[in-house]
Amino acid sequence: MQATDFILAKRSGLAHDREDIHAFLHGYLAGDIPDYQVAAWLMAVCWRGMTSRETADLTSIMARSGEVLDLEGLPHAVDKHSTGGVGDKTSLVLAPLLASCGATVAKMSGRGLGHTGGTIDKLESIPGFRAILDDATFYQQAREVGVVITGQSKRLAPADGLLYALRDATATVESLPLIASSIMSKKLAGGAKAMVLDVKVGGGAFMKTPAEVRELAQAMIAIGHHAGRRVRAVLSNMQEPLGRAVGNALEVQEAVRCLQGEGPEDLSELCLTLATEVLAASGLPHERSLIAANLKQGRAYERFEAWICAQGGKADSWEALELAPGRSQLTAWKEGVLAGIDALGVGQAVGILGGGRSRKGEDIDRGVGVVLHAKVGDKVAASAPLVSIYHRHGRGLEEAIALLRKAFQLRESGAPLPLVLEAVREVGGL
Amino acid sequence: MQATDFILAKRSGLAHDREDIHAFLHGYLAGDIPDYQVAAWLMAVCWRGMTSRETADLTSIMARSGEVLDLEGLPHAVDKHSTGGVGDKTSLVLAPLLASCGATVAKMSGRGLGHTGGTIDKLESIPGFRAILDDATFYQQAREVGVVITGQSKRLAPADGLLYALRDATATVESLPLIASSIMSKKLAGGAKAMVLDVKVGGGAFMKTPAEVRELAQAMIAIGHHAGRRVRAVLSNMQEPLGRAVGNALEVQEAVRCLQGEGPEDLSELCLTLATEVLAASGLPHERSLIAANLKQGRAYERFEAWICAQGGKADSWEALELAPGRSQLTAWKEGVLAGIDALGVGQAVGILGGGRSRKGEDIDRGVGVVLHAKVGDKVAASAPLVSIYHRHGRGLEEAIALLRKAFQLRESGAPLPLVLEAVREVGGL
Repeated sequence: MQATDFILAKRSGLAHDREDIHAFLHGYLAGDIPDYQVAAWLMAVCWRGMTSRETADLTSIMARSGEVLDLEGLPHAVDKHSTGGVGDKTSLVLAPLLASCGATVAKMSGRGLGHTGGTIDKLESIPGFRAILDDATFYQQAREVGVVITGQSKRLAPADGLLYALRDATATVESLPLIASSIMSKKLAGGAKAMVLDVKVGGGAFMKTPAEVRELAQAMIAIGHHAGRRVRAVLSNMQEPLGRAVGNALEVQEAVRCLQGEGPEDLSELCLTLATEVLAASGLPHERSLIAANLKQGRAYERFEAWICAQGGKADSWEALELAPGRSQLTAWKEGVLAGIDALGVGQAVGILGGGRSRKGEDIDRGVGVVLHAKVGDKVAASAPLVSIYHRHGRGLEEAIALLRKAFQLRESGAPLPLVLEAVREVGGL
Repeated sequence: MQATDFILAKRSGLAHDREDIHAFLHGYLAGDIPDYQVAAWLMAVCWRGMTSRETADLTSIMARSGEVLDLEGLPHAVDKHSTGGVGDKTSLVLAPLLASCGATVAKMSGRGLGHTGGTIDKLESIPGFRAILDDATFYQQAREVGVVITGQSKRLAPADGLLYALRDATATVESLPLIASSIMSKKLAGGAKAMVLDVKVGGGAFMKTPAEVRELAQAMIAIGHHAGRRVRAVLSNMQEPLGRAVGNALEVQEAVRCLQGEGPEDLSELCLTLATEVLAASGLPHERSLIAANLKQGRAYERFEAWICAQGGKADSWEALELAPGRSQLTAWKEGVLAGIDALGVGQAVGILGGGRSRKGEDIDRGVGVVLHAKVGDKVAASAPLVSIYHRHGRGLEEAIALLRKAFQLRESGAPLPLVLEAVREVGGL
């Protein structure tokens, strides 16, 4: 099939055969099909969509475009993905929690771009932590500790990286099948047979309405099923930041407190829900009370200690993380109830302080960030502290304060936001 | 404005500002905006369309992307465009006919791609004809003879050439605003203030239904009006070839007979209609009987003689054109009425014989072609000749005969096709 015929078929609203998708994508990877033909096709996909079968085919072809992790030999290898949010330190809690429940979490995590760092950036705020391990060490640690998380040293789903860069440059990022296949291609290449997807809804998240997000979750579950994986999804609120800490080292501190049974409540709640779903998908015992006991009674924390020490952290090294020396506070300008905290605005503030990166390879300041003193639904007195700011010699402080000031909505009344909106276990009918 | 914002705006169904279109197109021409961003935008245009104002802006920016002919000093400079068809030798008749009515036809004509040659290819079957003239000669001949048609020696609307190549490679050719702006950008750069568009409907033409074609005509008229040009359009049938001859030299012979008042009727009819419209647009006398008298009484033929001789043809050189030596005939396989002659199939047959080109610069055989002995609606006896084939030593003959056999439909009944469907003089409401 000629590339132009392939584009024309999608332009006309037809569904592609697997072979044609394979030929087109591999033609692109081999340099035989130019960027501009792929760009036109991407826009045609935004226009016409893709069927569930086409999306699954595209995803599995992308997943096999590079190396694929082989987790077959590990007991109950599970994976988790989050569509991204502000203050999301879930992986740091969930991974050792799952290990304490008999599962294995062996994954590679991208650094990614964003206002605040990715999981690896957060872990690297722990002195001595090694993000890159050789294969043998990776698998040995997975077997012995039950948790290993490294930076992406392998080329997992390189086709996705190429396509994503092109989508970013051609205003074709927002497309349900393209988003779903991009996420799931990396998950399929990651090798776990069971996984849970934490799909965020609202302000700080990629998609804004529950209906859109449910559709995305269903599409990703369908892709997983086509590939023989057991996938569940949880829709969770990202209208306000998760927990109270935003910023790499601050988030590690908060995750450690959560593993020590000290909350914050929304973070524990989300981790318990995600754990329940993925343990169920994996066929392990998944009663919520049992999982909660592992968190409360320190068995998850014990896995965290073993994990971090195996990757180079000294015992208790996470108790003395380097924080930026500057302190500032934003206080309530009147008495009221917190009616909203724009997660995106808070994320941008931390990015401005130096806590995120907008280009690959850019330096990141792991010591900066913010801690919220109130969450949505809380009553605050006039002049009470709303948020503490950790800055490096005032860098970005003025702009960060302006962003935070806009992010907090003080009203006469307001109610707490529900955190977990729903669990999605069924394949969507794309 | 960033290129991605520009693409996103069109993707979202918004209309662009003139400045933004200018910046995007000139960014592309300068090499600052890559092919792939333009390709994504083109597909977004296919999806979302463009308003009449946007289309006019795009067209005038394309028209000014290169040289523009200055025809201001010439009396009643007019132009004609045809969306292309099989057996279309209209320009060869219309240009001298218009000159005999007081207008000036001074135009550059592309060779183009297609199953059969373009106007310049046809003219070059006349011994001695010069397709390339210098500027001074071009304008002098226009003033003295009233007709000059040359190959495109100037870069008229180069942005169109670039965009067209990209559209061709990205399945984005079929889009009303892109087709209309492509055609009209070259017409605007061609410099005439009044013009007529011969927009073909059916089989051998680009667009298939009268409704589509009417919309295209209206869009092109609207573009012309935005640019201060007087534009009229004629929708004409291209379900069967125009006239009876298809092939470069054969078409010149037929045009000469038409200029000598010997038909064929459909060709004379179309030329008279086009002449009436464009003379009216130009503000010249345009009574049909007057124009017909110029054709009947040899005044148009006299302009043809002066024109061809001015461009290097000797007197009567067009009476002895070199035709390919091979002759073959397709005869009727049964008695019946010709219910259809697929113009595209006939064009393909002539292409296969060597009469067209599929790549720029390819050689073309001006002596090959076909002559139809019957037109749609004619009764034919069994074994009566349907079409004579002029071939070069059998090249492509077998395949051409197979194509012609499929192109002719013999039925129990059939009626002649109307030639001129309607004149369009009003701006469309895109």
